[in-house]
Amino acid sequence: MSQELHGGDIYKKNIDMDFSVSINPCPLPESVTDVLHSAVKNIGKYPDLRCEKLINLLSERYSVSNKNIIAGNGSSELFMALAHAFRPAKVLIPVPSFYGYEYAFGENSEELIFYPLKEEDEFKISEDLFEELDKGYDFLILANPNNPTGKLTGKETVEKIVKKCLEKNTKVLLDECFIELSDENDSLISETEKYPNLFVVRSFTKTFAIPDLRIGYLVCSDEKAVEKVKKHIPEWSVSQMAQDVACECMNSYSYVEESRRYIEKERCFLEEGLRGKGYKVFNSNTNYILFKNTGVTKDNLYERMLDKKLLIRDCSNFRGLNEGFYRIAVKTREENERFLRMLNE
Amino acid sequence: MSQELHGGDIYKKNIDMDFSVSINPCPLPESVTDVLHSAVKNIGKYPDLRCEKLINLLSERYSVSNKNIIAGNGSSELFMALAHAFRPAKVLIPVPSFYGYEYAFGENSEELIFYPLKEEDEFKISEDLFEELDKGYDFLILANPNNPTGKLTGKETVEKIVKKCLEKNTKVLLDECFIELSDENDSLISETEKYPNLFVVRSFTKTFAIPDLRIGYLVCSDEKAVEKVKKHIPEWSVSQMAQDVACECMNSYSYVEESRRYIEKERCFLEEGLRGKGYKVFNSNTNYILFKNTGVTKDNLYERMLDKKLLIRDCSNFRGLNEGFYRIAVKTREENERFLRMLNE
Repeated sequence: MSQELHGGDIYKKNIDMDFSVSINPCPLPESVTDVLHSAVKNIGKYPDLRCEKLINLLSERYSVSNKNIIAGNGSSELFMALAHAFRPAKVLIPVPSFYGYEYAFGENSEELIFYPLKEEDEFKISEDLFEELDKGYDFLILANPNNPTGKLTGKETVEKIVKKCLEKNTKVLLDECFIELSDENDSLISETEKYPNLFVVRSFTKTFAIPDLRIGYLVCSDEKAVEKVKKHIPEWSVSQMAQDVACECMNSYSYVEESRRYIEKERCFLEEGLRGKGYKVFNSNTNYILFKNTGVTKDNLYERMLDKKLLIRDCSNFRGLNEGFYRIAVKTREENERFLRMLNE
Repeated sequence: MSQELHGGDIYKKNIDMDFSVSINPCPLPESVTDVLHSAVKNIGKYPDLRCEKLINLLSERYSVSNKNIIAGNGSSELFMALAHAFRPAKVLIPVPSFYGYEYAFGENSEELIFYPLKEEDEFKISEDLFEELDKGYDFLILANPNNPTGKLTGKETVEKIVKKCLEKNTKVLLDECFIELSDENDSLISETEKYPNLFVVRSFTKTFAIPDLRIGYLVCSDEKAVEKVKKHIPEWSVSQMAQDVACECMNSYSYVEESRRYIEKERCFLEEGLRGKGYKVFNSNTNYILFKNTGVTKDNLYERMLDKKLLIRDCSNFRGLNEGFYRIAVKTREENERFLRMLNE
């Protein structure tokens, strides 16, 4: 386990404000916290290992069969289950991207190939990928929006890539964990029927800011593939508490809409603030921002902020990035103002 | 996922009393529920993916290095991580035993071989196993006490088996999930140093009756093996809530001692009651009882009790058992009395 490869290390560090983890800054709806507090009373009961109620709700929401859905102990469990189920030979990962893919597939594939996204294109994913895909891969791992770049890829482009992969017999893991907090709805979750090679993964973690509850889900129209992946997920892996809370979250999509609008406004505020201080900002479409210190200060910004008990994500250890890249989450106005003030000091 | 292969299916059935899951019947210590309720407030934070505090406490308690311990999302996650890490060719499982081993290793090994324990020996595990082990296996899976038989194997015998396995280059998964609720301390958890082929797995689930929290741990003295297994566990798989509660459980061993005594007394009460009604009881050493309907009633006891909204475990689908075998948990005196009364009706 490589904590240094992720944000959120609040256990070894003395932190007042954590800008390193990218979760919804809006307070959880009361109905959800109510369910959480009732669920605590049932920790003496085994969870429903079929996650039936939640899967039925997801099935309705996205108009996909409940046989096409798997719930997991966070999206990380689903990434690893895919890797264990298919043990692919060649896996293509456009970078920079989330370290978790490398963690999940590293031990369970023959070769990971990293496709460098270009800084001059603001690290956008485009049809340039087509040429690379012609080489023949077993798996392509895409995140939409991508992390840490915050870039959404348009639905049309993603669909073209997935179609190309289908022709080339390449499976696609499409991580949409941040898509519900993003500006546009470029999701393919309701298009899985057309692409049996497509595995869309989502989680409640970021959208509802509940990372300790550990619950994600996967949608794929290939029922045999779904059955295969399921067999690599431990029994009872999703707690009933997580299932109950997730079911209530499914009733709270007005909260998600409001959050999305709030995040867009606050992101603009932060981006302007960063630019105003001379940092290079990679325009984000979601609830976190990648930026670069192109000489504004000589010191390491991560260390400087840490001294002030504020945690940001030093992105120098992301494949495809280097010294000077940082990621911050979009938080509440008060916190964002504090961040910008502290950046000045 | 095969719910019918486990107890506890309270989600599809209308149940008043669940005797099918075997967890501590004593109410959780107040200090533990206090921690649980505080932990709920932190679901907005990512868990410590190293589980450092808990692992350090376990390290102290069992006098093993913290490098020899892995925490997991319930013991089921640890079983599967072992299977994924080693992908053994030949796995030996004495049966009847817990279905979870077959689930975890079935997809990840070439062959599962089931070694039939004998009803005339009350399904005891003994050195008879030696001859079988000579055939050469990659993994042996033992539960102490065994489930559903409730039989403890003496520490000396288990140690001889593990030693034999070491000579034969056979790894041993020793499931001690129920040992803390059993009559004798026949654990090998503090002997792992001598046997690098030994993986002892435990969980907090049964001992503290918190199956929805999902937390177990593994101890092995082979550091390389531990590192290998860890790589097959998804990141952040153990929630901070589970870690915090488990840490508090570590301070509550007087509760475990009291529970053990209570269970022994109540088990004797249930065993006498069952025998009094003519059922064949396999003497148990722990918090559940295997018994057999040898003609007391013509009907299926599981169905009969289910009609009364009382769930017991029909053991006819355990490998090595057949129609007429049932397992019940040892519960509180009031519940045990109700069970025996209803058995009479």
